[in-house]
Amino acid sequence: MSKATNSVGGFTLPGESGYEAYTLKLADIWGADVIRDSDGTVLSDEILQAGYDIYSTLCVIRDHNTWADAHPQYLQSTLLMTDARTATDGPILTIPVMEDFFEEQFTVNDSPEAMKYWQVFDRTTNTALPAKQWHYEPSGRSVVIPEPVPFHRYTVSFFAWRIWEEISMYNHTTNHWNKEHLKQIDPVYPETQEYLSDWLEHWCETHPATNVVRFTSMFYNFVWIWGSDERNRNRYTDWGSYDFTVSPRMLDLFADRYGYALCAEDFINGGKLHVTHMPPTDKQRDYMDFVNDFVIAFGRRLIDIVHRHNKKAYVFYDDSWIGVEPTSPRFREFGFDGLIKCVFSGFEVRLNAGVEVDTHEIRLHPYLFPVGLGGAPTFAPGGNPTQDARRYWSHVRRALLRARIDRIGLGGYLHLLEDYPDFVEYIAGLADEFRAIRSLHEAGAPACLPLKIGVLHAWGKLRPWTLSGHFHETYRHDLIHINEALSGFPLEVEFLDFKEVMTRNLEEFGILLNAGERGTAWSGGDVWADPGLVTKISSYVYHGGVFLGVNCPTALTEDTQDTVFALSNILGVDLDIPARTCHGALCFETRPEEALFPADSHIPLHASVHLTDSCARVLASLDGTPTLVINEFGKGKGVYLSGFETTLANNRMLLNLMLYAAGISADQSELLTDNPHVETAYFPDAGTLVVINNADTPQSATVSLSNGDRVRTDIPACGSLFLSD
Amino acid sequence: MSKATNSVGGFTLPGESGYEAYTLKLADIWGADVIRDSDGTVLSDEILQAGYDIYSTLCVIRDHNTWADAHPQYLQSTLLMTDARTATDGPILTIPVMEDFFEEQFTVNDSPEAMKYWQVFDRTTNTALPAKQWHYEPSGRSVVIPEPVPFHRYTVSFFAWRIWEEISMYNHTTNHWNKEHLKQIDPVYPETQEYLSDWLEHWCETHPATNVVRFTSMFYNFVWIWGSDERNRNRYTDWGSYDFTVSPRMLDLFADRYGYALCAEDFINGGKLHVTHMPPTDKQRDYMDFVNDFVIAFGRRLIDIVHRHNKKAYVFYDDSWIGVEPTSPRFREFGFDGLIKCVFSGFEVRLNAGVEVDTHEIRLHPYLFPVGLGGAPTFAPGGNPTQDARRYWSHVRRALLRARIDRIGLGGYLHLLEDYPDFVEYIAGLADEFRAIRSLHEAGAPACLPLKIGVLHAWGKLRPWTLSGHFHETYRHDLIHINEALSGFPLEVEFLDFKEVMTRNLEEFGILLNAGERGTAWSGGDVWADPGLVTKISSYVYHGGVFLGVNCPTALTEDTQDTVFALSNILGVDLDIPARTCHGALCFETRPEEALFPADSHIPLHASVHLTDSCARVLASLDGTPTLVINEFGKGKGVYLSGFETTLANNRMLLNLMLYAAGISADQSELLTDNPHVETAYFPDAGTLVVINNADTPQSATVSLSNGDRVRTDIPACGSLFLSD
Repeated sequence: MSKATNSVGGFTLPGESGYEAYTLKLADIWGADVIRDSDGTVLSDEILQAGYDIYSTLCVIRDHNTWADAHPQYLQSTLLMTDARTATDGPILTIPVMEDFFEEQFTVNDSPEAMKYWQVFDRTTNTALPAKQWHYEPSGRSVVIPEPVPFHRYTVSFFAWRIWEEISMYNHTTNHWNKEHLKQIDPVYPETQEYLSDWLEHWCETHPATNVVRFTSMFYNFVWIWGSDERNRNRYTDWGSYDFTVSPRMLDLFADRYGYALCAEDFINGGKLHVTHMPPTDKQRDYMDFVNDFVIAFGRRLIDIVHRHNKKAYVFYDDSWIGVEPTSPRFREFGFDGLIKCVFSGFEVRLNAGVEVDTHEIRLHPYLFPVGLGGAPTFAPGGNPTQDARRYWSHVRRALLRARIDRIGLGGYLHLLEDYPDFVEYIAGLADEFRAIRSLHEAGAPACLPLKIGVLHAWGKLRPWTLSGHFHETYRHDLIHINEALSGFPLEVEFLDFKEVMTRNLEEFGILLNAGERGTAWSGGDVWADPGLVTKISSYVYHGGVFLGVNCPTALTEDTQDTVFALSNILGVDLDIPARTCHGALCFETRPEEALFPADSHIPLHASVHLTDSCARVLASLDGTPTLVINEFGKGKGVYLSGFETTLANNRMLLNLMLYAAGISADQSELLTDNPHVETAYFPDAGTLVVINNADTPQSATVSLSNGDRVRTDIPACGSLFLSD
Repeated sequence: MSKATNSVGGFTLPGESGYEAYTLKLADIWGADVIRDSDGTVLSDEILQAGYDIYSTLCVIRDHNTWADAHPQYLQSTLLMTDARTATDGPILTIPVMEDFFEEQFTVNDSPEAMKYWQVFDRTTNTALPAKQWHYEPSGRSVVIPEPVPFHRYTVSFFAWRIWEEISMYNHTTNHWNKEHLKQIDPVYPETQEYLSDWLEHWCETHPATNVVRFTSMFYNFVWIWGSDERNRNRYTDWGSYDFTVSPRMLDLFADRYGYALCAEDFINGGKLHVTHMPPTDKQRDYMDFVNDFVIAFGRRLIDIVHRHNKKAYVFYDDSWIGVEPTSPRFREFGFDGLIKCVFSGFEVRLNAGVEVDTHEIRLHPYLFPVGLGGAPTFAPGGNPTQDARRYWSHVRRALLRARIDRIGLGGYLHLLEDYPDFVEYIAGLADEFRAIRSLHEAGAPACLPLKIGVLHAWGKLRPWTLSGHFHETYRHDLIHINEALSGFPLEVEFLDFKEVMTRNLEEFGILLNAGERGTAWSGGDVWADPGLVTKISSYVYHGGVFLGVNCPTALTEDTQDTVFALSNILGVDLDIPARTCHGALCFETRPEEALFPADSHIPLHASVHLTDSCARVLASLDGTPTLVINEFGKGKGVYLSGFETTLANNRMLLNLMLYAAGISADQSELLTDNPHVETAYFPDAGTLVVINNADTPQSATVSLSNGDRVRTDIPACGSLFLSD
């Protein structure tokens, strides 16, 4: 690997008591300037006094069991819906409310304040039962419906206390710990706020060695509902939803502020909840704004305490980050000094880099744990952590070239590395490579091709790059594949929601992109019934823009209009629905533009469409169904892509397609190579061209230098070259 | 092939003038008792006087061009919708209404009576334009919208005369005829009725040799809209829709009778029209009833004329059969003496056999034409008509064993057979086999296993067995595969619509079956939001019934309830929708019941579902998705099947599954063999067991005789054995 000389800084090492010498040795090998503790580890004085900056991890709502046990009314809550129970023969239907849920995570909240929000639904008629038609029997923790309609299905939506902080629960369960369950307390109560403020004040006073308090994160975890059935332990996981902020008090405060009350069903939504992947409702947005406001207000109080003790405050952009919304314009009100995000993928680097904060740090995978997130071995027999690290780095690095990140780091138990010297060596090289890239950014931004992509979905800047969750949790959605591809392209990218798009001059965008399944936040849902939106986008394309739609772009959720895709006239295609069984479809010939398609690239068939315009050109098809279509519309064009899956070859295909559609010739650019496995980034101010091999085999590629010379390069597997002007 | 001795009768031969000797020779070889003419052929006196009964084919609304040209206002009509046109820059949008349609089939009807039904729609807002916002310019045959909203899309729904009878148009075009285009006249006008009555009276008087007038069929063709673009000539084909009955007068009469008016959009439906595959609307049912009433009334007048001339009246259950509805309870009001249906498949035999009429005749394929329906050669170089006939017969025969058909026949040009002696010989054997089967039915009905299947869909008895169209036109729907399998099973089958199911005692049904894509007439659509229906079916299953759902059974069309499948609690599964991206699914082990699955059987994955009940048993799965699930519900059970494709092995799998689910042991029955390629039918009154080999290779099978003996049989490819007690 070609790299800068061994360098120091921008590296956060997880220290470990009992392994002081090893900690300091690795800090030296990796060029660390910061040592941190991890969940479950404490730093010894020897480490604290070794001359490194110290990060201390604080999950403020956790680890207060004594106080929590004395104040059980201040635990965090959520609303849960039981599975539906069918009324059959007997006159009485009894629904034990906790039967479907993990008893160690939840317990019933049947206080009067909570009970007023409980709802019993007849799901066959989809109506809430009047209060007089059911009652709760605390002894059996059951709802009783004395006179159910035979064979109707009933559910109970109820308040539950959460009695085990979920990240701790996960680590505990995964690592088979045998220690006390940590509870989470809810800062929505003034008493909790007072307690936590005092506690943090005291903590700062008693931790003089700490330079940076790393909050993990603020107060409310993403939603993670475990079930009683071991066959379905993960009943529900949404990294972007607010259901774990809900408490009777929060709802009462909301009603006071907004002038209307939310009911349980506003969250429960027939048991589906409001997953981030769905178009948000107005009530949902109101509630999110409300909680965000609350988290900022009390979060700021805590950060002020940290600052008063001359420490910095960083926030971890994971775990209990709900209500923090780092990419919202209000984030700066917290006063955080830095943000740390754990990353598997390039898009997470861009998500982090886009936050307005002084210091951006990424936590690399694999964590130094015996077992990884998916349950596979890492630092344990059968694991290959070096290979894992190399794979993640090949995704992360290409995004690091596009956007500046200030620091990298690891997490976990350092002593596990004693048996993995190759991993230690690999990270040393990786750290040097990171610092070399960072120094290029310090000189000036990398060059981009003259093409700006606007990614259009329901969340816009509130959920840029991510689809809420890591790649492997959202892989079924085309957009995460596209975002991952985009994260390393030499293009400018901006995310827009449907409200913002109406207020913007769209001329700056070479391409507007809309990608998602029908009825999702990503394609947009029924927002496309708005003629204003249709007109705005149509005018943009007609006057020269490109609209790139993937899977079910602009799809209305119901079959009530003449087309499913609101912009079928631009895209030249529409979705096949059962009503079209009797309709013929335009025959076509597939005429590929060979130059667009690298070897091994492919387009998956994620939606079955037919042509709506006889002039539409089919560039690719599968079993008679068009998968890539370009349709002229005025001076611009629609481009339809059936699906997208990120691979090295497909990434290059997408970039080729974008440049082709936008009419940009980049053949002689230093920003493109002739090998889809090899990408480049050019930093004009540093006068350096970086060539990266994203493949795990050695590659050759011809690259163009800024002076116009074309040179043949050989790059080792996963390696990089730094070529100076 | 084992067969009865050479026999005579029940066979209708298409005679051909100029080939008199050959006609009579084939009549002898095949044991024909009837000679018919065909579309485009005329019988000579030599044939008419040869001692055979004579069928004459009459398409009453066609072949009156002189009268039609003198009365162009009495041609048949339809409503058409143009493709949508996008308004862009200019202030005026002009839509030439005929541009999308085949000029030889349609011409604009801009008479005042018709214009009052025209509609111009803004499809972006999905609203009809007020009359003052558009006008029609006859000179350019165009609708002009002076002030369209930029980038909104507009359509015109207009009345068109139909100027070329569609079946004739198809034959003309396919066979490259060079003769006059035959028009169709519309009996909705009293003048047409008078003309046709007089004409038929005269026809009967001048055709004394004719014994049977075969109507082809009554007045209105199924919908077949051809486009101007050769790349999309078949814009729309629906064998079950009523759009070709529509005329200004028909709509006026409807409004008088029903007290409310229909508008163009009631038919056009955003350009989707109301395909038979979709759940029908109330207005659609009203209109169908109205037209059916009209067709019966005037049809009866014509049939009375035929009867007065001591001829019989048969009707062809194809082509212009719309409004006839042979399976409706009103069909007997016509007074038809027989019904003829052309068949490719077993389900069409059952459809025919189920009509209440004296004589049931089937027209076998292939027709004696150079080219078959799909455009492939038949009696032409490259064709293999004997193989075609054998293949169709193997589908048809198993249904003939279950339901009595009185006659078979062929159609087309007899002289084409001169070069195909093997075909002549094959049909001779086939005719004997048919007559042998018929004679068994004459002795008494075949035995059935003690299991009755109720097939539940939106059309019930109005569209039993068929999905409107031949198998190859509807193959994408699971139900046609199931109906085809059922057509030869030794089970009783009844079709029920959702209204009828509410009035019936369901105990007689061992299994209720509901099979179809989401949002179709076959699964039912939003009728499943009716709690009464849900309760009725639930109670049936709870008390011991079996509910077999395929693909998206009981699926609501929108995601507004807690489940998509209204009976997910019975089926034990529900559909995966995007909102479930964040929801976990119950893990399961697949535990196949090996005895259910013959070699080479398979279950296609037509819908992605997850388990909703931890007790549900997964018997088959594909890539982690359940494809066959059995779920106990009270004393009964739900059975979920992801999809079904009719093959010999899959048919037997379905029968095995049905018997297993209903708890019926048939191992020792004479109605099942140990070879899925071999089926049996037992006729107790005739004391005969028929063993058929449905495969095109020789097969051996063990069959059980009625005395309990089990015997090993060898049956030639596609052959049959008749074993007497």
